[in-house]
Amino acid sequence: MGALSEGLIQVLIPAAALLGIGFAFLQWVLVSGVKVSGYADDESQENNLIESGHEEGFEDFEVVAKCAEIQKAISVGATSFLFTQYKYLVVFMGAFGAVIFLFLGSVKSFSTKSEPCTYNKGQMCKPALANAIFSTIAFFLGALTSVLSGFLGMKIATYANARTSLEARKGIGKAFTIAFRSGAVMGFLLAANGLLVLYASINLFKLYYGDDWEGLYESITGYGLGGSSMALFGRVGGGIYTKAADVGADLVGKIEKNIPEDDPRNPAVIADNVGDNVGDIAGMGSDLFGSYAESTCAALFVASISSFGFTHNYAAMSYPLLISSMGIVICLITTLFATDLVEVKKVSEIEPSLKRQLLISTVLMTAGAALVSFVALPSKFTLYDFGNDKVVKNWHLFFCVVTGLWAGLVIGYTTEYYTSNAYSPVQDVADSCRTGAATNVIFGLALGYKSVIVPIFSIALSIYVSFRLAAMYGIAMAALGMLSTIATGLAIDAYGPISDNAGGIAEMAGMSHEVRERTDALDAAGNTTAAIGKGFAIGSAALVSLALFGAFVSRAGIETVNVMNPKVFIGLIVGAMLPYWFSAMTMKSVGSAALKMVEEVRRQFNSIPGLMEGRTKPDYANCVKISTDASLREMIPPGALVLVTPLIAGTFFGVETLAGLLAGSLVSGVQVAISASNTGGAWDNAKKYIEAGASEHAKALGPKGSEAHKAAVIGDTVGDPLKDTSGPSLNILIKLMAVEALVFAPFFAAHGGLIFKHI
Amino acid sequence: MGALSEGLIQVLIPAAALLGIGFAFLQWVLVSGVKVSGYADDESQENNLIESGHEEGFEDFEVVAKCAEIQKAISVGATSFLFTQYKYLVVFMGAFGAVIFLFLGSVKSFSTKSEPCTYNKGQMCKPALANAIFSTIAFFLGALTSVLSGFLGMKIATYANARTSLEARKGIGKAFTIAFRSGAVMGFLLAANGLLVLYASINLFKLYYGDDWEGLYESITGYGLGGSSMALFGRVGGGIYTKAADVGADLVGKIEKNIPEDDPRNPAVIADNVGDNVGDIAGMGSDLFGSYAESTCAALFVASISSFGFTHNYAAMSYPLLISSMGIVICLITTLFATDLVEVKKVSEIEPSLKRQLLISTVLMTAGAALVSFVALPSKFTLYDFGNDKVVKNWHLFFCVVTGLWAGLVIGYTTEYYTSNAYSPVQDVADSCRTGAATNVIFGLALGYKSVIVPIFSIALSIYVSFRLAAMYGIAMAALGMLSTIATGLAIDAYGPISDNAGGIAEMAGMSHEVRERTDALDAAGNTTAAIGKGFAIGSAALVSLALFGAFVSRAGIETVNVMNPKVFIGLIVGAMLPYWFSAMTMKSVGSAALKMVEEVRRQFNSIPGLMEGRTKPDYANCVKISTDASLREMIPPGALVLVTPLIAGTFFGVETLAGLLAGSLVSGVQVAISASNTGGAWDNAKKYIEAGASEHAKALGPKGSEAHKAAVIGDTVGDPLKDTSGPSLNILIKLMAVEALVFAPFFAAHGGLIFKHI
Repeated sequence: MGALSEGLIQVLIPAAALLGIGFAFLQWVLVSGVKVSGYADDESQENNLIESGHEEGFEDFEVVAKCAEIQKAISVGATSFLFTQYKYLVVFMGAFGAVIFLFLGSVKSFSTKSEPCTYNKGQMCKPALANAIFSTIAFFLGALTSVLSGFLGMKIATYANARTSLEARKGIGKAFTIAFRSGAVMGFLLAANGLLVLYASINLFKLYYGDDWEGLYESITGYGLGGSSMALFGRVGGGIYTKAADVGADLVGKIEKNIPEDDPRNPAVIADNVGDNVGDIAGMGSDLFGSYAESTCAALFVASISSFGFTHNYAAMSYPLLISSMGIVICLITTLFATDLVEVKKVSEIEPSLKRQLLISTVLMTAGAALVSFVALPSKFTLYDFGNDKVVKNWHLFFCVVTGLWAGLVIGYTTEYYTSNAYSPVQDVADSCRTGAATNVIFGLALGYKSVIVPIFSIALSIYVSFRLAAMYGIAMAALGMLSTIATGLAIDAYGPISDNAGGIAEMAGMSHEVRERTDALDAAGNTTAAIGKGFAIGSAALVSLALFGAFVSRAGIETVNVMNPKVFIGLIVGAMLPYWFSAMTMKSVGSAALKMVEEVRRQFNSIPGLMEGRTKPDYANCVKISTDASLREMIPPGALVLVTPLIAGTFFGVETLAGLLAGSLVSGVQVAISASNTGGAWDNAKKYIEAGASEHAKALGPKGSEAHKAAVIGDTVGDPLKDTSGPSLNILIKLMAVEALVFAPFFAAHGGLIFKHI
Repeated sequence: MGALSEGLIQVLIPAAALLGIGFAFLQWVLVSGVKVSGYADDESQENNLIESGHEEGFEDFEVVAKCAEIQKAISVGATSFLFTQYKYLVVFMGAFGAVIFLFLGSVKSFSTKSEPCTYNKGQMCKPALANAIFSTIAFFLGALTSVLSGFLGMKIATYANARTSLEARKGIGKAFTIAFRSGAVMGFLLAANGLLVLYASINLFKLYYGDDWEGLYESITGYGLGGSSMALFGRVGGGIYTKAADVGADLVGKIEKNIPEDDPRNPAVIADNVGDNVGDIAGMGSDLFGSYAESTCAALFVASISSFGFTHNYAAMSYPLLISSMGIVICLITTLFATDLVEVKKVSEIEPSLKRQLLISTVLMTAGAALVSFVALPSKFTLYDFGNDKVVKNWHLFFCVVTGLWAGLVIGYTTEYYTSNAYSPVQDVADSCRTGAATNVIFGLALGYKSVIVPIFSIALSIYVSFRLAAMYGIAMAALGMLSTIATGLAIDAYGPISDNAGGIAEMAGMSHEVRERTDALDAAGNTTAAIGKGFAIGSAALVSLALFGAFVSRAGIETVNVMNPKVFIGLIVGAMLPYWFSAMTMKSVGSAALKMVEEVRRQFNSIPGLMEGRTKPDYANCVKISTDASLREMIPPGALVLVTPLIAGTFFGVETLAGLLAGSLVSGVQVAISASNTGGAWDNAKKYIEAGASEHAKALGPKGSEAHKAAVIGDTVGDPLKDTSGPSLNILIKLMAVEALVFAPFFAAHGGLIFKHI
């Protein structure tokens, strides 16, 4: 038997969460040590980015003041975008909450009578109406936590960006530390916050549900649905916003006008920097929070219908939450290796330092998982395995967690190999720029395709091992294992856009070439870590969706998802098509919005006298408006596709077709997502490789403005929507459809499949 | 009961095949009416393409003579490439034939004893060793027929190309008719040849097998394996050849040197034109022949284990062959509508005329299928449905054929919509060139992704309907229905590369601008028909592979292919990855070969004095050699991936993982293939749209050499390997793996799954 009492667990989990929040606060205090003072608080100065000119005399005061202004402009833009987006999301939440309540309530015609439990034979469970109500509440809680996660992330990032630029004046190590600490603030805050809200919700729901754990954990899955549906809009809306601005700014600025990236004369430059914060930061924060919430919910649901649930073994039930708690502690120790124990002194040490974070957290977490597994779990217990009982030992679950954890590391390292310009794949892509943009695009696409091989094999291996050891619960725990180091993952991921912004601010504030080179080096490593973060997100999403899929299959009472059943097969092939449909929508949206942006930027360059010479300032606000309008309008169709498809499939074609659909979108979406993210990351770094000119080979291709460099810029631009809009949204597609299917499973099982019933 | 006697059928099938061959001969006679005389037969003149200069005085004689020379050079290049390729293929055939024999022979340890039948309970069947021998023979027959199909197609195309250029001097209608008739020669010859060889093989095998139809049709599946494995190497090798040359020629010629496409000064121009014939013609001929052979084999195998087989109903067993025979007759009538009954008088009538071919053949074939179904089939019979008997009526099978047939039409029309520059999707892509190559690539990729939606829904619908009506036999018949009009499909498909070559010859022979405009118009329609052909190929491949997959599942004795079984799921996710791995290989191969070609072309322009001025001739042979070497070397790894994967999966992981693998590669590969083909076709036609400048919008983007046009050329170049190498090879990947699994099923069922047996 496990050695933990219920009381101790009730202390340990919130303690870990609070420790994480405290650590985030400490990092924040350290970041805030860098002063960004000046007249930034004076609202009227907001747009004075250009006027103060480039005199070197008052450099220090001038530069700090300018940084403050730019930071403020970015922060105001991002905040205003998010609040506008939230208005739409509140409407959506209301409507979708009503759908959840009505669909689930109608399962037993809104009856308030208790009924026999589905799995725990012979026991009575709470009425279906209660599940409808609590699922809806959980949905709202998840949605709000997700929004909060994204918002806090954005606030931190816009707080940190200018501070990183200013520290870059002192040296690469200082700048790296500030950027990384800021990432850590976000990582720990989100991880701890997610754990805390979920923990609190479970305890609150238990006041009503009491011993009916089956109903309790079934309705808690609404939390995952809420988290992921907000993440979807965050990722898609933010992704369109950032890439419309980025592509638009680059096409006119870099290609037509030959001015540097982030040049303050470019009217789209503020929108571009705002975009990094609302897309890469807020979107990604919501996304990983969603994965975390869903894998925990999947694990808890499967556990609740196992012997843990039936025997009311509280410690064993809490195993997923304890693993996450342990993860926070492990990540805390890991962070010290980047910020305090080892110091980054030169550019070439940045990537190894970030890579080391992955390795250290994985190694330590392996030990941590062993500790939790042997302390919290009974040495032997039974798990639900599609109607059968499966006898499992505690070390089996330890292995499940560990396969997921190490699969994450393999995915991370593979992603690094394919997207960092320190290795031959990206260098080959850069080399192909010699013959122009076309070969660059061909080589980049081929690189992305190739980069799926190792991640897929490692996902397949961890699926096989964890399923064999502990059925669907094993898969859910593998997913949680991969996500247990989420705080570190988020920290190194958020580090990327913060560095990107820092570079932009350095350029706009007219800092020296040296400072800009340092922020560029931070940013190049950031492209790789962003790709790694996306790799983690998609890898964990694959495991999470499979776990949710398994839970859905159990809950919907499907005996076998047989590919040879035509109902399943048509779901499978249509499901495999959905990622393409979704990508077509999002890429076209970015393309159209970018075209509008290009026209506006061109218009400003042509019609505002003195803009090109830096004598007058551009109309940043108009570009911000174009990005905002485009992203809010264009996020709706892809969002609707993802949310409505499972409802249509389940209601009209039934649970078998829906099961096929989920499996198809999972196995196809993973490939599209990984290849899109890595292709984009590789193109970006191939361009940076040529720009940095750090080797003979790179020098031969460069410098900036050479034909090869122009070809590389085209690749980079093509990659933008792939890596920051469609690619990372796809992992939300697969897991959101799965969690939605699970939440609505009782309805589909009772009333679904209308078409097949009538033919 | 059916009204056809065995004797009558023994006459009808070969009669239809001979009719097709006769019609092909007639068309050939009509094409040969265009005389390409001159001193082309004099070998020593072969490379004199430039020297004769551009005098207008002797134009007619000069031009014809030059055409003859160029034609000869292309034909010699193509023949020599194919013969070199065949040397490799003979080695492969020998080795793989030995593998088939050894694997299948070892199922019952090479015993020569008869044994109880698998399905036809209570009967005795021929020994497994006989199946091993006859499967190997069938494999060789299929391989040889496939090679012959590709070779004949190439011969016809290189015979027709110069004739089309010469006819283009007389007018668009004449040129169209010659190009179309030449396509028809190929279409009818291949369809008839495929039917005849298969028919003859069955009758020969029957001399040994007698009443053991189960063994007979099981070993006949080797025919499909042989056909498709040759097609794989043909498509991949030819695809790399043609695109290395095309991309290489374009990158230096069009982009750097600003000389027209197919300019005789470009050293890679002959290699480029040779490539069209060995890739698009020979490769595609082998490919569609393979689909046809496999779907017939799948249908025959499934029928042999149904009541048709058990009651030895010869007419019903021959149903698939009768449908194909009827198809030849229907296509013959259809062809007359393009060449004799309706005359093409202007450019705008070309595409409608080709589209009409699809519609007419589909409508007529619907009636033809009805006739065959009601005459050949008993009104009621039972089919094998995974261990159960399914009662089926003759009109059910009629519907199966018809769903496939009409799904093909829908796919064809959808493809046309997304790749023809007469509609908004391609025009939008062209429009995006205003802002450069990056937006062009983004819009093109989005178009390709979007273009999968309708085809997938129509494939899903025809799968559901035909499966519900007649289980796996229904799927196989739907596939054959889609392929029943293969002669027309091949005719309009082959028309494309012939027109492309004709344009090249017109340019090289220095024909007038007007002639070149006409061949360009033919070629633009050809891009669309090529995309339609690829749409058919991939749609039919999806149905064929599913039918083969079903036959494999039956033959391997798998009860259910349950996605929730981890063995199946890891197969599914790895299978979905394979198209990416395969595409990565083929695209990288094209990219690397193109880089080499670019360097050679640059070298020649820099080192051969007077080349740019047209005073000296380039060294065409060196470019031909680069394409040849690259394609032969690079076709091996992707070929090995496709052929070895099922063997590894079946032998080490067992039939369930292999089943998952097949399903995964099918549902994922279809999407990649369709989107790649359509993206490439759309880019090519967006470029042609700008070049032709036929509307106000197009004129605003052009003319040739404008910034928008340059961006369009980059898109076109990126699309080349997508649409002509990786995309069309993928449908071979999915069906070849399925037919290979089926052929080796007895071995895997007996000895497979070594790894899982030991853990």
